[in-house]
Amino acid sequence: VVTTGGLGPTVDDLTRHGIADALGLALVESPQAEACVREHLGRHGIHDPSPSQMTQALVPEGAQVLYNRLGSAAGFVCRVGGGLVAALPGVPSEMRAMTVEKLVPVVRSAFPALPAICRRVVGVARRPESHVNEAVRDLMEAPAGPRVGVMCSPGVVRIVVTASADSPQRAESAAERVVGEIASRLGESVFTTRGESLAEVLGGRLGASGLTLSLAESCTGGLIGQLVTSVPGSSGWFRGGVVAYSNEAKRGLLGVPARLIESEGAVSGPVAEAMALGARRAFGSDYGLAVTGIAGPAGGTADKPVGLVYAALAGPAGARGQAGRGGPSAATSHEWRFSGTRETIRDRTAAYALDICRLAVVI
Amino acid sequence: VVTTGGLGPTVDDLTRHGIADALGLALVESPQAEACVREHLGRHGIHDPSPSQMTQALVPEGAQVLYNRLGSAAGFVCRVGGGLVAALPGVPSEMRAMTVEKLVPVVRSAFPALPAICRRVVGVARRPESHVNEAVRDLMEAPAGPRVGVMCSPGVVRIVVTASADSPQRAESAAERVVGEIASRLGESVFTTRGESLAEVLGGRLGASGLTLSLAESCTGGLIGQLVTSVPGSSGWFRGGVVAYSNEAKRGLLGVPARLIESEGAVSGPVAEAMALGARRAFGSDYGLAVTGIAGPAGGTADKPVGLVYAALAGPAGARGQAGRGGPSAATSHEWRFSGTRETIRDRTAAYALDICRLAVVI
Repeated sequence: VVTTGGLGPTVDDLTRHGIADALGLALVESPQAEACVREHLGRHGIHDPSPSQMTQALVPEGAQVLYNRLGSAAGFVCRVGGGLVAALPGVPSEMRAMTVEKLVPVVRSAFPALPAICRRVVGVARRPESHVNEAVRDLMEAPAGPRVGVMCSPGVVRIVVTASADSPQRAESAAERVVGEIASRLGESVFTTRGESLAEVLGGRLGASGLTLSLAESCTGGLIGQLVTSVPGSSGWFRGGVVAYSNEAKRGLLGVPARLIESEGAVSGPVAEAMALGARRAFGSDYGLAVTGIAGPAGGTADKPVGLVYAALAGPAGARGQAGRGGPSAATSHEWRFSGTRETIRDRTAAYALDICRLAVVI
Repeated sequence: VVTTGGLGPTVDDLTRHGIADALGLALVESPQAEACVREHLGRHGIHDPSPSQMTQALVPEGAQVLYNRLGSAAGFVCRVGGGLVAALPGVPSEMRAMTVEKLVPVVRSAFPALPAICRRVVGVARRPESHVNEAVRDLMEAPAGPRVGVMCSPGVVRIVVTASADSPQRAESAAERVVGEIASRLGESVFTTRGESLAEVLGGRLGASGLTLSLAESCTGGLIGQLVTSVPGSSGWFRGGVVAYSNEAKRGLLGVPARLIESEGAVSGPVAEAMALGARRAFGSDYGLAVTGIAGPAGGTADKPVGLVYAALAGPAGARGQAGRGGPSAATSHEWRFSGTRETIRDRTAAYALDICRLAVVI
């Protein structure tokens, strides 16, 4: 049994008490759990934990403490009969790190006969869920072999392949076989077979080619920049971005001609192209990626409805890479029509835009 | 019973089959569910649903269909004895909208004797969870009256107050009493008593005052812009931002003097102030908000460790509002030291920065 959450310092954090009660164990102070509390508070300049903070140092008697390197709530594992009861913190980042680094080794050593498991995640961009489903239906329905499941998020479908076998090598090769089959069926829509994000894959390609990227965002308001910079080391290939939420910003910082905005509208292919070229120029990068659109809920018209988005990618003109930075540049734009809420339209825009950039940067 | 997810078109979407099996009902085509499929696909230019897409038109015989205005998966409700079994889509935005707009009215009319419920969410910025917990501990432990719970996210603690009574008015006044007490105890750390985000509250204040904001982001990479522009109508008070991920961008687009970056370092109070002033000038806004810091995992030093963040707010100099846009400006900076992952450091930075801006814009 694995629980998450309820290990904090507040009075409604009752997991430690609940587990101790259920197992008939007393709660005792643990020096290792106390160390988590003191180290975490110490980083915030607090050297004298309050009584409520110190409840985080309590664990059921005999429990093995799981060190939390990211927060004050230690986890713990109790042995019950032939099984384990584990309590992990609820904060997702702390829970994930503790699971991988602490809990899995404990479970492995408690149950040495467990099969080896290999889990691979294939990322597919810009394809509807139903299309991906049709493409892998026979693999999902196969009575034997790795399990195949499909998960959706705006603009990206993830196919999860889970193989188990009696050795890590056998599990990996079984998963690899299915992953290879999926990749060959879905072609260049597949941006990763190792669970990476679109921004990570794009960053890997830019980094490997020594190329750089800058952004000009309108309707996404910084979302693409946030995704790109969530990749550690992105400062090596990401130069920066302009969130051009007003026409003045599109003109002043990106050099989009006022007459272009007037004649075509701020949400148009030509303005997207001018924004991409402007970002490339302003930041001196190899590529400039721009989006402009109507995320809603207001602002749509019959001609330009909510969900209409233009994206453009600017790069060196002529044969790939010949012109280089500072040389002549060319931009191409794309038109998309999305449905959904403001949030999903923005998420989908970001995924689609990162994907056109990924496909352009070939290594 | 309410289920979420498993209503998609893929072969592992089995919720409709599972519920029909459990209740001994046949699956039948529903014209209303089919309308959801056709409308959604039509918006994507698909006018001929595939067989797998058409499985989304199936519901258990006699079920009431819940229209999905955001996606292709209709929900449904089956009556079983004196109870209800409801199936909602798993996509969070679709699930939320359907719960509020469709499911709640069905539940209310099926169970007219249910008590009225009033739920209020108090948002507290820049206070540790344990501090908030101590402040409201007696309210959480109170044997009667509204239930009080605490939820944490980086930089923000939310206190949820849930009151139930025999009339909506009584529930609301019971919740209001507790909310008022919490607000008076926590003072200006409370940024909302109605569940709004920091960006919504800040936007409301800027909009009501006719003031505008621009951003200069380094370590957050666009996250603050994304939060600000996730507020519908933000184009009324948000001018734009610069993601200055490189020193060249800090100099070129924001006018931060090169010698300042050299002498103080890019992560420093003076550079944050120069970035805030630069954003205010570049976008012609009343306020300029800037952050620069080390989000990690790499890039930290003994002097400037991972988690060190500077933020600055620039506004009109002198008496409040007298100078106005274009007049002389002044900036003040803040230094923070955060712990956690790259993601939580960035989230916390964004929350803290929005909060210093909220406190500066007094209406």
